[in-house]
Amino acid sequence: MVRYLLQFQYLGTHFRGVPKVTPVERAAGFSAVEDALSDAFSHLKLAEPPNIHVSSRTDSGVHALCNTAHADLIYGDDKEPFDPDSIVHAVNRSILHMGRTDIRLMNCRPVSPTFSSRHQALGRTYLYRVVSGCYHSRLPIPEVNRSWGIKERLDIEAMQEAAKHFLGTHDFTTFRSKTPETWTKDPVKTMKVVEVRRASCFLKEHDPFCRDLEVLELIFKSRSFLYRQVRRMTGLLVAIGRGKLQPEDVCTLLAVRKIAAYPKAAQVAPAHGLYLCNVEYNEKDLVYD
Amino acid sequence: MVRYLLQFQYLGTHFRGVPKVTPVERAAGFSAVEDALSDAFSHLKLAEPPNIHVSSRTDSGVHALCNTAHADLIYGDDKEPFDPDSIVHAVNRSILHMGRTDIRLMNCRPVSPTFSSRHQALGRTYLYRVVSGCYHSRLPIPEVNRSWGIKERLDIEAMQEAAKHFLGTHDFTTFRSKTPETWTKDPVKTMKVVEVRRASCFLKEHDPFCRDLEVLELIFKSRSFLYRQVRRMTGLLVAIGRGKLQPEDVCTLLAVRKIAAYPKAAQVAPAHGLYLCNVEYNEKDLVYD
Repeated sequence: MVRYLLQFQYLGTHFRGVPKVTPVERAAGFSAVEDALSDAFSHLKLAEPPNIHVSSRTDSGVHALCNTAHADLIYGDDKEPFDPDSIVHAVNRSILHMGRTDIRLMNCRPVSPTFSSRHQALGRTYLYRVVSGCYHSRLPIPEVNRSWGIKERLDIEAMQEAAKHFLGTHDFTTFRSKTPETWTKDPVKTMKVVEVRRASCFLKEHDPFCRDLEVLELIFKSRSFLYRQVRRMTGLLVAIGRGKLQPEDVCTLLAVRKIAAYPKAAQVAPAHGLYLCNVEYNEKDLVYD
Repeated sequence: MVRYLLQFQYLGTHFRGVPKVTPVERAAGFSAVEDALSDAFSHLKLAEPPNIHVSSRTDSGVHALCNTAHADLIYGDDKEPFDPDSIVHAVNRSILHMGRTDIRLMNCRPVSPTFSSRHQALGRTYLYRVVSGCYHSRLPIPEVNRSWGIKERLDIEAMQEAAKHFLGTHDFTTFRSKTPETWTKDPVKTMKVVEVRRASCFLKEHDPFCRDLEVLELIFKSRSFLYRQVRRMTGLLVAIGRGKLQPEDVCTLLAVRKIAAYPKAAQVAPAHGLYLCNVEYNEKDLVYD
């Protein structure tokens, strides 16, 4: 057996999130990120199909430029472990044979048999893409399912000021969603980066219907996040950009520590503008001997 | 009857090009841009389903940020013509009901009953997107079907020098493809813009596997183009960027005026990196009275 760290990217539009779907969902044609990876690995000639443990559970519709997982490949007694590049090549060939062009294994490296892609992650970086000046239902076609369209011109300076209040260590209870896990997880998180900035996009220059649009990137970095925390923080920043709330409201909302305090003036940002950009590790945790 | 100019955008990936497909293709689940528009218009309560004449025939896989068409809407005797915004709204609602998110009517305006979207076009602008430094089969997932991946680092200065040789009026026979129309159409075209430049892309900054990639934009503008001319010009420019041909070879190839002279060192650029950006008209040709 060899344990591997896997790095992969996907568009989340046609995935039901990360954890494997139920047999009923599967029969109905749905599949999750773990299903697609497991199916692709099942074409490698291994003694057993591997269990794939994805580090970061993105919701249905959320994309990943780099998500990670670990998987144990069990080789027969008489077999040499595969070369990592061959694994990448074979898995991606299987994915294409499955008719999928929305997921790809980017990298694979052997790690220690005790390594956990989830628990040893040092940091995660998310990007949220907003198109300002455009009804969501009128997003340019190449941006459909890839960003969030906001009709108003957003006040970017106000959003930047608000973003600073998120930085550092806070209790993020107001920015969490109710899940069965809600009460067992520590709501205190440390935001290393919360940034709002103007971005370029080839459509802005070339699409005659995009000239007046503004593309914004919201970047979030922390060791870990609560369930839907990034989408709730984004929703609040957008409400501030719309002038419905003030930058200082971030401080009040953090201090009140109540899920119900999340303001009605803010809408939780939809899944399809969100990208998991990277999951970082300490290089020494990745040593394989 | 009122004739309308339609402006619309689409991703070409799931379309069989522009002209309506045959009934056999249709039964097999294929559809073309004209089919999708006609189907959407058929839900308007009109006396007859309109014929839609698209101005610019993009190939299967080619995208449009703005293509145009004209269509005659025949209203019953007792009916007032629809308001153009209502047409846009109703057509887009039909498109969504058809389960399509890859085409949208952007604009609709009444024009004179003799107006032709094709013959009165004053200019067309195309964009070709190339990702340099990346095998095509390893394009970042969000770029799949949206650009052309070239493994080598391209020599952009050489491509820019070559682009200049295309400018102005030339016989483009070497850059045309064989079609039944080949011998009836004038191969002399005037290139108003042929430009190669570095572009930004959010992936370059946020995708850990994209750091070393370079995104190039090739821009072409002319009143009209020969069949596959842009893809053949792009293929040649990329071959020059790879160092397989020299910028001066453009002049030689234009002078020789033979389809067979298109060099083997160049590959006709694939459809999926190409975007029709705009079809321009003289504003006075669009007057409706």
